[in-house]
Amino acid sequence: MSMQGQPLLVTSLIDHAAREHASREIVSRWADGSVTRSTWGEVGKDARRFAAAMTKLGIAKGDRIATLAMNHGHHLVSWYGSAGLGGVLHTVNPRLFDEQLVYIINHAADRVLLFDAMFLPIVERLRDQLPTVEHFILFDAPAQGDYKSYRELIGAEDGRFQWVDLDERDPVGLCYTSGTTGNPKGVLYEHRSNVIHAITEIQPDVFDMSNRSVVLPIVPMFHANSWGIPFAAATVGAKLVFSASNDAQVLCDLIHNEGVTHSAGVPTVWIAMFAHMDKTGIGYGKLARVIIGGSACPRAMIERFMKDDIEVAHAWGMTETSPIGTMGKRPWNWDAMSFDEKVDNVAKQGCPPFGVELRIVDDEDQILPRDGETSGRLQIRGPWIIQRYYRADEDAADEDGWFDTGDVALIHPDGVMQITDRAKDVIKSGGEWISSIELENAALGAPGVQEAAAVGVYHPKWDERPVLLVVKKPGADVSEASITAYLGDKIAKWWLPDEVIFVDALPHTATGKLLKRQLREDYKDYRLKSLAAA
Amino acid sequence: MSMQGQPLLVTSLIDHAAREHASREIVSRWADGSVTRSTWGEVGKDARRFAAAMTKLGIAKGDRIATLAMNHGHHLVSWYGSAGLGGVLHTVNPRLFDEQLVYIINHAADRVLLFDAMFLPIVERLRDQLPTVEHFILFDAPAQGDYKSYRELIGAEDGRFQWVDLDERDPVGLCYTSGTTGNPKGVLYEHRSNVIHAITEIQPDVFDMSNRSVVLPIVPMFHANSWGIPFAAATVGAKLVFSASNDAQVLCDLIHNEGVTHSAGVPTVWIAMFAHMDKTGIGYGKLARVIIGGSACPRAMIERFMKDDIEVAHAWGMTETSPIGTMGKRPWNWDAMSFDEKVDNVAKQGCPPFGVELRIVDDEDQILPRDGETSGRLQIRGPWIIQRYYRADEDAADEDGWFDTGDVALIHPDGVMQITDRAKDVIKSGGEWISSIELENAALGAPGVQEAAAVGVYHPKWDERPVLLVVKKPGADVSEASITAYLGDKIAKWWLPDEVIFVDALPHTATGKLLKRQLREDYKDYRLKSLAAA
Repeated sequence: MSMQGQPLLVTSLIDHAAREHASREIVSRWADGSVTRSTWGEVGKDARRFAAAMTKLGIAKGDRIATLAMNHGHHLVSWYGSAGLGGVLHTVNPRLFDEQLVYIINHAADRVLLFDAMFLPIVERLRDQLPTVEHFILFDAPAQGDYKSYRELIGAEDGRFQWVDLDERDPVGLCYTSGTTGNPKGVLYEHRSNVIHAITEIQPDVFDMSNRSVVLPIVPMFHANSWGIPFAAATVGAKLVFSASNDAQVLCDLIHNEGVTHSAGVPTVWIAMFAHMDKTGIGYGKLARVIIGGSACPRAMIERFMKDDIEVAHAWGMTETSPIGTMGKRPWNWDAMSFDEKVDNVAKQGCPPFGVELRIVDDEDQILPRDGETSGRLQIRGPWIIQRYYRADEDAADEDGWFDTGDVALIHPDGVMQITDRAKDVIKSGGEWISSIELENAALGAPGVQEAAAVGVYHPKWDERPVLLVVKKPGADVSEASITAYLGDKIAKWWLPDEVIFVDALPHTATGKLLKRQLREDYKDYRLKSLAAA
Repeated sequence: MSMQGQPLLVTSLIDHAAREHASREIVSRWADGSVTRSTWGEVGKDARRFAAAMTKLGIAKGDRIATLAMNHGHHLVSWYGSAGLGGVLHTVNPRLFDEQLVYIINHAADRVLLFDAMFLPIVERLRDQLPTVEHFILFDAPAQGDYKSYRELIGAEDGRFQWVDLDERDPVGLCYTSGTTGNPKGVLYEHRSNVIHAITEIQPDVFDMSNRSVVLPIVPMFHANSWGIPFAAATVGAKLVFSASNDAQVLCDLIHNEGVTHSAGVPTVWIAMFAHMDKTGIGYGKLARVIIGGSACPRAMIERFMKDDIEVAHAWGMTETSPIGTMGKRPWNWDAMSFDEKVDNVAKQGCPPFGVELRIVDDEDQILPRDGETSGRLQIRGPWIIQRYYRADEDAADEDGWFDTGDVALIHPDGVMQITDRAKDVIKSGGEWISSIELENAALGAPGVQEAAAVGVYHPKWDERPVLLVVKKPGADVSEASITAYLGDKIAKWWLPDEVIFVDALPHTATGKLLKRQLREDYKDYRLKSLAAA
């Protein structure tokens, strides 16, 4: 070969950061309110200590190491340390309900579970159902009983561990996503996909991250790698500010005290932040760039940021896309746009960076035009897009690499993608999916229910909550309470509809299917009674 | 595999640019003063036309296609079109002397030579010595004799050519570099190395290129891929402004008329630009970022840019490094620095982006500390660094990938690299190397010469020109004219020293070698008589 062929490895990211950005800080604001400081240099050394400690516990290349933890520096160390021993770091979402937690930890066959003390009740409650987990390790508390202590394990090592030999196609991370039906599915990230994603993400038209950036990933590390930020930050030596709490006051204080320039999170965080800012009169500090993902940013929020001279942009993606699929960027003719045109632009989901390709197709998989008018199922492919779910028998992408995102979108002639609807009939609540169909099927079993439709309606904290529309059987004696009681042991508690609304009829297609799009349209501005009361 | 494995291809760069940035302009200012406009969309289509036309001429995967051309849109098309048929685009430097041109075209066994009409005299003079070249094609003029016309060839095709199947490790580009001794050596770029380099280059701490950037690569396309700019620009859909002339007035007009935001070139270009600006009172327009490479930017020039609020930064690298090895970046504590500290920072060569590693070693290859004080031979490795020269029998890098750059440097504790001297005894003139040792050896043959030393002294146009220091044999009748006449047919004309200076003695090491470092130091402020007269 004429040029060199070093593999693209996650370990090279931490080696680079530790070597070239040794003194740049990593700040952790813990659940107990304390703040600790580390550096990329120390994270690099601690990652080697972590790998050494895991190796002593018998953990080896290919093993899964799970975390049940908020954002903090120890969590970051575990990511890189696991990568360096060839492990697969499995970030578990502590907000999942018990059945899901048990399912995914068993499906992943995690051998280690590292967790924050705040999640001790979950561990205590579920540990008997987790036979593969040999080691339970507390991230942020001393050892107790057979729970080991991260700090004690790390403290016993000298940091001279040599990374194991790795191929760039080796797996390095695992994150489960709740599908529309059936069990959660695992997305298994590779070294190569993570590294290409990291280099891509730092570019001016994506996250615009440099050595001067101070990044507060409000998005949890258990949500699609915190959108890749811990990897991107290592690439350029950005300062990272982690918070185990998403309380507005806490975040606002961190933004001011640490000089945060970039934040990334769901839009709902900003509702509380704006309320806090309005109450206290405090400003943005050095904050310059707000990245919004998870769900669409309300137009009023976009306008407020823009009027305050804060660069706001949508990131669109999913666990299966590492997660950057598109990013709102200021186009080359930005300066010539009116304020409203700018808001229109920002309100869309943005453009694919080099590496990913988008297309929209109709129900017969025919490719639709990028005319800004025709909507179709959004598909995506590229080197950081899923090929196959963990331990699945079939590919998730077709033979050409196209992965169906479950969103319905149109693509404008200038390449800007705009989500217009959802192909998969799901309700997005707290970053997870509730299957409308499963909810409806369960409701159909309730006495007196003739037909039911579940739709997601806006909720400021959860993004969406389900509302169940019910057509009663003629003469049936049925109430909201009777339906909710019936559903209680059929579905997860967090799936229970916030309201049951009785209607005379539901709209249908010509072939008799529920017209979900119309229902979503009809209820898009519906205000939950629980909110009206608050 | 769990994630997708699309290869990293140069063809994907042009496909992305043509699809996502179709209307973004590519401007060419030709040698005759005319300006033409194309777009990334048209370049993408023309590249397919080019590939189809070459295929009809019998050119196939692996074949070398040479260009002898300045910067313009047709040249850009040939890069991407050649990549798409699996060809190797060989950029030939028209400033080389005839022997070098003949050597490298024969060594590369180029089957096609595309050239600008302004280089017709070179082609006419040398074509009989270029037996492998089957097709001579004029980029910017109608067909004449057996010289074909690029525009006619392209015009006959429909742009529906399908790219051939490619592996990311396939070669795609070739650029020769004049070594210190012996014949020029070819650096064979691969798809993977070019693509990783392109994604790396756009980041804020390197070129900081986005869709809004308007980039004027003053550096020629035959110099290390114009520092990779034509690839980086496709990645983000930047507007490119090409000029076949580097005349200050022409460049200044383009900067103003086209809204240029980024320029990249050698520092000497800016001496003429500043003179033009001082004379006319014209400003920088929208220019925001000036990237300086090829040789060190004088401190006074850095200060002028900084006072004028232009971001100026060094790029350091070489043909063998694609070429970015380091880049001057604003460190995280930039705002806290004094003006002088900032200038000190910018005057150094900068930091390696993620992907490349640097080290300095002593004469026994022992690694030296990054203490900002100890100088050593600078070595580099990474996925866009050379492994082996084209058709060489041995690797250019050692078994760990370390490639010796020929520079002597120190590395500061914060990772900033600073060139302090040159390990290889060369004089850099017009972007090419003159071997001091070969020049000295030739001079030693001249009657009356006892000892000779060649050193490079500053020249505003050529960066450096050679001066020959001569100790006469006792009683010899020898003059500048006699030595120059003797050298006339021994070395290339452009190697002839600008001055011969007679000295009583030359400094030596304890073992009797010439103390070149001291001579370079003694003559670093030497002013050539030809300049004093001007």
